[in-house]
Amino acid sequence: MSPVNTKSVWKTSARLSDGREIVYFDEAPGLGRAEVPDTRGLPPAPGGGAATAESALRWDALAGEWVVIAAARQDRTFLPPADQCPLDPSAPGRPTEIPAPSYDVVSFENRFPSLFGAGGALAGNSTDTNIDPLINPAIAMRRPATGRCEVVCFTSDHEASFASLPEKRVRTVVEAWADRTEALGALPGIEQVYCFENRGEEIGVTLHHPHGQIYAFPFVTPRTARMVTQAAAYAQSNGGNLFDDLVGAELEAGTRIVARNEHWIAFVPEAARWPYEVRIFPARRVPDIPALSEAQREAFGPLYLDLLRRFDRLFDTPAPYIAAWHQAPVTDEAARHQFGMHLQVLSVRRASGKLKYLAGTESGMGVWVNDIVPEAAAQRLREARGAGEAG
Amino acid sequence: MSPVNTKSVWKTSARLSDGREIVYFDEAPGLGRAEVPDTRGLPPAPGGGAATAESALRWDALAGEWVVIAAARQDRTFLPPADQCPLDPSAPGRPTEIPAPSYDVVSFENRFPSLFGAGGALAGNSTDTNIDPLINPAIAMRRPATGRCEVVCFTSDHEASFASLPEKRVRTVVEAWADRTEALGALPGIEQVYCFENRGEEIGVTLHHPHGQIYAFPFVTPRTARMVTQAAAYAQSNGGNLFDDLVGAELEAGTRIVARNEHWIAFVPEAARWPYEVRIFPARRVPDIPALSEAQREAFGPLYLDLLRRFDRLFDTPAPYIAAWHQAPVTDEAARHQFGMHLQVLSVRRASGKLKYLAGTESGMGVWVNDIVPEAAAQRLREARGAGEAG
Repeated sequence: MSPVNTKSVWKTSARLSDGREIVYFDEAPGLGRAEVPDTRGLPPAPGGGAATAESALRWDALAGEWVVIAAARQDRTFLPPADQCPLDPSAPGRPTEIPAPSYDVVSFENRFPSLFGAGGALAGNSTDTNIDPLINPAIAMRRPATGRCEVVCFTSDHEASFASLPEKRVRTVVEAWADRTEALGALPGIEQVYCFENRGEEIGVTLHHPHGQIYAFPFVTPRTARMVTQAAAYAQSNGGNLFDDLVGAELEAGTRIVARNEHWIAFVPEAARWPYEVRIFPARRVPDIPALSEAQREAFGPLYLDLLRRFDRLFDTPAPYIAAWHQAPVTDEAARHQFGMHLQVLSVRRASGKLKYLAGTESGMGVWVNDIVPEAAAQRLREARGAGEAG
Repeated sequence: MSPVNTKSVWKTSARLSDGREIVYFDEAPGLGRAEVPDTRGLPPAPGGGAATAESALRWDALAGEWVVIAAARQDRTFLPPADQCPLDPSAPGRPTEIPAPSYDVVSFENRFPSLFGAGGALAGNSTDTNIDPLINPAIAMRRPATGRCEVVCFTSDHEASFASLPEKRVRTVVEAWADRTEALGALPGIEQVYCFENRGEEIGVTLHHPHGQIYAFPFVTPRTARMVTQAAAYAQSNGGNLFDDLVGAELEAGTRIVARNEHWIAFVPEAARWPYEVRIFPARRVPDIPALSEAQREAFGPLYLDLLRRFDRLFDTPAPYIAAWHQAPVTDEAARHQFGMHLQVLSVRRASGKLKYLAGTESGMGVWVNDIVPEAAAQRLREARGAGEAG
């Protein structure tokens, strides 16, 4: 057990019965998390190693991007009844993924991972390319899908949502994200750590218990690589920082700002792709979550909870959303120096009962067509405040 | 009326009552399509011109891509009852989008377009940038959404599907695609013509009548731009053509080939992103549909119908799919010289009742995770042949 933050969060690492790591983030010390064994006796989790047909990164030569083939996931747990939720704490006679009888925030290696084995004994060859069955390595490369996928439970309360968490708990989640970003980013071969939450069956969520995920990628993802390129080109041609100037321009325009406090600014981007999309930037640029100051961490919860509650009030039922942390690449120092970490929150719902689909223009050509004017989306979100709230 | 192809297709252009163009492609001459007026007396269609908040291309500076804002489309026709289908031919007392009492294939300007006004009187300023309300043009640019969106009806039979068309009709559709690619590509400011079909409510289709769409873009789309870059880099470092070598490698490997004939090859790509994804390349590379030879056009129908019927047999109900024609940019001669036109057919259904969602990894980071092994998808498609068929 080690205090992550001397003020408020205590971290305990343990192992599940199949060897996967589980890390508890508690709001009080001395809870003995490591002493509770996983009684399920699961067979050993896959350790990584060679690329196989069922699990590999494959090179898409026409796009210049890696695609993850992860066939074992087809059998993953799909919308279990509430009394069989694997993300609840364990109870007598009902062992779950979390051995402890209670928890605050917990992160553990996904039982059905797309990427796995980073830092493991067999991961040493993770950067080998393995050309099979095609011949020309400029056209077809395969690599082991070496990385790590973790599940982060935000609360032991199955019926809660992120938006219903108290501010103190959000602070604990931020500490967990910071810890996992640092720990996974330090594993050999990891190039980017991605913390995110999918919420809602409409976007394919298969477990209702409030949780997010963390992917540690062995490459810089396409969206991040593009931002890095754009920021470098901007610095060269304009002499400033793209992220700083973008936030500054949004503040100056004002028409798309949804909420802000001393340390954070939430706005609908000028060129929003999704019906309801918000980007949340810290007022002072940092490359990633671990680089956030005490004050920034403390100020995040109030703003983010306010924003998520606005999303929940947009329609007759809570909005499905994806919350995506854009963090700098781990090892590229020039990129880290320029990158502006931020959180993107997007909803695919465009009206009650109507979703935005990625059809021919988006899926085929990568051109997003958005039916909602960004300024109107910002206005609706500004108006979606709770009864009795000032604004 | 002009014969598009001296063998089999007759073209007639006319105007709808709001000024939109409609083009008939008939399998017999002398049908008097232009003499049938649109009796609806619609108000004039928007002619294009300046960027407005509701309709514009907006620059996503973090991605370096244009996003289309098209708010007027929110009100478009949504799953009308079969007896109110706007894509049926007109009947006494029921005027539709197609004035004629029958048609073979017809293409007309979309009544709810995302892009419009290309070639129109007001489109002269289509490349002006219009910076409002932000200040720095490297961060926020807006342009008029100048382009053209057409709807292509494949048959007057409301209950048909592309897979149920006779081969002769597919040939007529190919002629229509070729004609529209050439005509729209010749409009000032158009950089790429994209022919595609969305099929199935699961991907958001709002009209069941068998139809596709054509978008004429005033920029090269992100996916196409990426392929152009990749092909140029490949030529420089390997000395060959990326598309040719990719098709050659797939033929050599053989494990992902689904179907082929003398002129066309259909395979699941090595790095497929979607549960069921097939790329159909002509054996001899061409930049776009108009460049296809007589023999290639004639041989396309048999292969494509075979493939679509296999998609329809994968599950208990016909598979939803997107069919996307990847064509070379219109004006970039170097790109046209290297580009390999092909058709991508993808389904988002991964099992009966289960869809592939674009959740956190895809929507946030642009990383596709595919649960189906490409070789297994190819095997299933090879086995999905009809009763009594040889293979």
